[in-house]
Amino acid sequence: MADFIDFRSDTVTQPTPAMRRAMAEAEVGDDVYGEDPTVRRLEEAAAERLGKEAGLFFPSGTMANQAAVLTHTRRGDEVLLEEESHIYYYEVGGVALLAGCQVRPLPSRRGVLDPAVVEAAIRPANIHFPPPRLLCLENTHNRWGGTVMTAEQTAAVAEVAHRHGLKVHLDGARIFNAAVALGVPAAQLAAPADSVMFSLSKGLGCPVGSLLVGDRDFIAEARRYRKALGGGMRQAGILAAAGLVALEEMIDRLAEDHALARRLAEGLANLPGVQVDLETVQTNMVMADVSATGRTAYQLAEALAAAGVKVNAVDVRRLRWVTHKDVGPADADRALAIFHRILTDG
Amino acid sequence: MADFIDFRSDTVTQPTPAMRRAMAEAEVGDDVYGEDPTVRRLEEAAAERLGKEAGLFFPSGTMANQAAVLTHTRRGDEVLLEEESHIYYYEVGGVALLAGCQVRPLPSRRGVLDPAVVEAAIRPANIHFPPPRLLCLENTHNRWGGTVMTAEQTAAVAEVAHRHGLKVHLDGARIFNAAVALGVPAAQLAAPADSVMFSLSKGLGCPVGSLLVGDRDFIAEARRYRKALGGGMRQAGILAAAGLVALEEMIDRLAEDHALARRLAEGLANLPGVQVDLETVQTNMVMADVSATGRTAYQLAEALAAAGVKVNAVDVRRLRWVTHKDVGPADADRALAIFHRILTDG
Amino acid sequence: MADFIDFRSDTVTQPTPAMRRAMAEAEVGDDVYGEDPTVRRLEEAAAERLGKEAGLFFPSGTMANQAAVLTHTRRGDEVLLEEESHIYYYEVGGVALLAGCQVRPLPSRRGVLDPAVVEAAIRPANIHFPPPRLLCLENTHNRWGGTVMTAEQTAAVAEVAHRHGLKVHLDGARIFNAAVALGVPAAQLAAPADSVMFSLSKGLGCPVGSLLVGDRDFIAEARRYRKALGGGMRQAGILAAAGLVALEEMIDRLAEDHALARRLAEGLANLPGVQVDLETVQTNMVMADVSATGRTAYQLAEALAAAGVKVNAVDVRRLRWVTHKDVGPADADRALAIFHRILTDG
Amino acid sequence: MADFIDFRSDTVTQPTPAMRRAMAEAEVGDDVYGEDPTVRRLEEAAAERLGKEAGLFFPSGTMANQAAVLTHTRRGDEVLLEEESHIYYYEVGGVALLAGCQVRPLPSRRGVLDPAVVEAAIRPANIHFPPPRLLCLENTHNRWGGTVMTAEQTAAVAEVAHRHGLKVHLDGARIFNAAVALGVPAAQLAAPADSVMFSLSKGLGCPVGSLLVGDRDFIAEARRYRKALGGGMRQAGILAAAGLVALEEMIDRLAEDHALARRLAEGLANLPGVQVDLETVQTNMVMADVSATGRTAYQLAEALAAAGVKVNAVDVRRLRWVTHKDVGPADADRALAIFHRILTDG
Repeated sequence: MADFIDFRSDTVTQPTPAMRRAMAEAEVGDDVYGEDPTVRRLEEAAAERLGKEAGLFFPSGTMANQAAVLTHTRRGDEVLLEEESHIYYYEVGGVALLAGCQVRPLPSRRGVLDPAVVEAAIRPANIHFPPPRLLCLENTHNRWGGTVMTAEQTAAVAEVAHRHGLKVHLDGARIFNAAVALGVPAAQLAAPADSVMFSLSKGLGCPVGSLLVGDRDFIAEARRYRKALGGGMRQAGILAAAGLVALEEMIDRLAEDHALARRLAEGLANLPGVQVDLETVQTNMVMADVSATGRTAYQLAEALAAAGVKVNAVDVRRLRWVTHKDVGPADADRALAIFHRILTDG
Repeated sequence: MADFIDFRSDTVTQPTPAMRRAMAEAEVGDDVYGEDPTVRRLEEAAAERLGKEAGLFFPSGTMANQAAVLTHTRRGDEVLLEEESHIYYYEVGGVALLAGCQVRPLPSRRGVLDPAVVEAAIRPANIHFPPPRLLCLENTHNRWGGTVMTAEQTAAVAEVAHRHGLKVHLDGARIFNAAVALGVPAAQLAAPADSVMFSLSKGLGCPVGSLLVGDRDFIAEARRYRKALGGGMRQAGILAAAGLVALEEMIDRLAEDHALARRLAEGLANLPGVQVDLETVQTNMVMADVSATGRTAYQLAEALAAAGVKVNAVDVRRLRWVTHKDVGPADADRALAIFHRILTDG
Repeated sequence: MADFIDFRSDTVTQPTPAMRRAMAEAEVGDDVYGEDPTVRRLEEAAAERLGKEAGLFFPSGTMANQAAVLTHTRRGDEVLLEEESHIYYYEVGGVALLAGCQVRPLPSRRGVLDPAVVEAAIRPANIHFPPPRLLCLENTHNRWGGTVMTAEQTAAVAEVAHRHGLKVHLDGARIFNAAVALGVPAAQLAAPADSVMFSLSKGLGCPVGSLLVGDRDFIAEARRYRKALGGGMRQAGILAAAGLVALEEMIDRLAEDHALARRLAEGLANLPGVQVDLETVQTNMVMADVSATGRTAYQLAEALAAAGVKVNAVDVRRLRWVTHKDVGPADADRALAIFHRILTDG
Repeated sequence: MADFIDFRSDTVTQPTPAMRRAMAEAEVGDDVYGEDPTVRRLEEAAAERLGKEAGLFFPSGTMANQAAVLTHTRRGDEVLLEEESHIYYYEVGGVALLAGCQVRPLPSRRGVLDPAVVEAAIRPANIHFPPPRLLCLENTHNRWGGTVMTAEQTAAVAEVAHRHGLKVHLDGARIFNAAVALGVPAAQLAAPADSVMFSLSKGLGCPVGSLLVGDRDFIAEARRYRKALGGGMRQAGILAAAGLVALEEMIDRLAEDHALARRLAEGLANLPGVQVDLETVQTNMVMADVSATGRTAYQLAEALAAAGVKVNAVDVRRLRWVTHKDVGPADADRALAIFHRILTDG
């Protein structure tokens, strides 16, 4: 892992020594029987941190999101979500495949939905329409470049949804990035939502795992769907032990990732042909539009990889750079220099 | 049915005396055993008319569309379609509910998709993405006000889809309206598509029924899905008999509906506060934007109904007026006068 | 249709002159808007006849059954049904395909479930189990040879289901055969069930159509699923008109079909190598076991067809003979003579 | 965990010190990007051990089974399986919920299917039938008490399935128990199947994980379904490291579990009112029928738990006792003594 600089995602982070130690020593039991003490402690800590009644540990954020969709809906319902959201874009069509629900993608401003847009999209009862049942939000918003939704913005759209009888699920895979960026407790961002997912395996550095939190009845039903999806693990306390370390030690340091993203963004914005909307650089991501370079993002990602810098091309025009605990200022500067050379050698 | 003027839809049309006669005298058999001679004749006539190998009779256009989606896809695939299309908007979320596929709605210009937009939406193979498998088109386009897609426009988007390995289904519920408006055979509009649905029960005046056409293997598989959806009818020749009359006698007269829609559109455009985009008035529909009247479309639809004129409010701003064989110029003029009075009495 | 004697099914029946007249003259409207007066009259008559609050007209019994399953369940539930039942055996896997529910087939005695068997199959709440939600019954029972379930037998299993929180759906495609055979009103057989389907297109002779009846809320929800499945028809009064004739004129005469089945059964039982369990000959079907003839049911069905007699081989050992209004004693006698010749010539 | 003797399941096993060490030191990467070296090593080792081309690591056996079903089938297909099998009984209805397929449960002799029964259940092509597509086997068979299927028995039923165009999936959660009991390589038991699942987290003692093996194309497609189900984990090498230890060190010792089960079975068979079919005690399970004790299995399980012995009541009559590395002869003897006291104290 030392032979390249990896800005592809914060999912690539390696567990810390403290996590490895905790995993090695974790007290474990059979979690399908509800007997893993470490998993239980993590679920309680997660619920408390997000201000909800109960929590549930999952092997992935995708499963936690899909279990939430399954629990909130019946087959044939309509799920409203932002048109670039992870649940719609990156979860293999799970809303339809698993839950049998139709997605209704809505446009946004940098990932933040306008309550009026949501309200207009909620269809009345009519024999031709799938009943709208769930609104999914995402904070921070991945494909918009890690943009943040404030508690007020969240509350405003949630209020519309609730008024019309919809539930609200928040895909908060990186909600602690939002909380740190805004300087508010994550629970405040979670409060308007009926359920929230957050990931341990991204900026928080754990090897595996995400949590779903909500009220007790919701979590009980989600537990059944977790089993159906194959998320019932046995001595999962091994993984949960790292999660407890993460909640203790890894949240505040996200500020460093944000500072590094800002430094990277400013560097990228100065490169020839590269454009960065600095207003979207709010957390640990930078979206660099390379369409003015004369090369596609796919070509440039390949050239960078060949020179030891890994980034993701999210579409033909954009390279996504993600900062995390395993890259630092020196890596950023070196990557910028390499990228500069690639762009000017061309 | 004589006590109001009905511009809600061409689905309200009553069977003609010739249809009633044909139904009363139809030779019938058990169509689940493939033994109804009248159904067979209609399926062959439909296939021939649309230039495809085989046809299949359905109790509704929705079922024919959904059987096509089921046949072209596997669960978990992605279905690209126009963002105001009937399959997405009015079919109760069937693509997800029945086929387990994710919809990917695309913007258009008056219902006509840009090949570049389609191409950009076709995602590459990636473990995060549902495989794109099917493109659905609609001609004429209902929610855009009966707008027409030319054979060239159809071919252009179908070429993109086929080049990337997608199938193309054409929701041609009103394809004969398009054919008459363009002055081309319907088969020419159908040619670029792998499957086409058209309805007998709209402008063609039949009580019940739609046809799906495509190649022989496709239709064989669609027949199984029709049975699964509950579309296996017994002596369906009763209904098919009317369909044979419609194909003989009812297509050319659609030109009258189009002329009447034009007359209605011009009259509506002259009413205070009513706006009509006359370029969209291409067949038998008129979308009247009433947002400048100070009243919602729902309120005005109610006021019109109370005065004996039925129209559909398709959203808060728009009233849809549909012409068909059971309304004529006198009805249009009377309706315009009534609407004028409502708008000015205020 | 005159060139062979057809004992395959009562679905092959031709509409009567009275039905054709009623269809030709039917007053119709757009039933998707709820405006077809003939459909409404039929739905009310059906509900009243079965002793339920409301009714809904479907293009097929399969769709009515599946809409009932969809309405009573959520995806992921378990549906208990008899192991030879139509919903499990002949409906293309719809319970899984459409409703996303697991079937749990149960053994029976001649189609009649033992309440103790049902009770043992109802699983307790457990994270590993799909929640049991629905019990489906069938009266008369097709694959058991038209056997009848009494009101007491129905009530006994329904009581078990209801006590454990399950709903009960009765596939009563041929419930009037059961009612006539038992000499009780159909409503008495329907009373223990939450929903009942019956067919017009079988022994009652209509070309197309089945009814679903239940309470008002259930029917409202079933109406939405009917639309989703593509069962929303427009001027369906054409078909419903025949249904009204059937309810008036065609029920009592089912006794003739039963007498004919008995005559046929006794004749078949006397043929060499043919065995008939006469206790199962309770309505209009005869299951003839031909395994002692040295030929398969498939071979004999073919030989009979070549000689002008159509019957269905339901598996390798059994020929099913169904009586209906379009066959009479002379047809039965002629068919028996032909079958005798085939068996002895062989 | 020391305060009771746990015979509920081999899933309760604690990781060994060697496993904990391997997990603490595992070299890891992002497995969603295919970059976790430890996961890759485990997948290769698993494939090789089972004699297949490729392997895939899953968080649970349920997910691996369901991914296999999803990959082998299309929605609306029929899946044949033994009527007491785990996939049908314990996986929350996943075949219907996730894959949209109908189950067809078949009777067996102690978990071993008769090829003739399988053949009779494979239905021909018919518009009324879901196409049979997959046969699922289970070895050892859980609900039959850990019974073994030989390579010959497996080959015989697989031959029937393959001859009719069905695929064969083997739920080999405990296939190494079967291999050890039969004294043959697991690959020999796996050979007739197109895909095989086995679990690390049962008798092999790992905290979490199961493997699916098959040919390369199958595994590539299963990988996509694993992502859809939410089984894409990041630094999963932590868990896989324990799996590599298990394959090296934990298989041969299963013989000890089998010997212990035999000792336990004989002891149980001598208790008053307890019956054990000793022929089914072939691996590490004992099914004890307690119906002659005058108490239900649920009551006795409760009494045993109160006395420090945990077992599972699998239904009203049967207690399941499972041996594993964390129980030994002294535990068995003590449990038998406790159970004797409970039975005789009344």
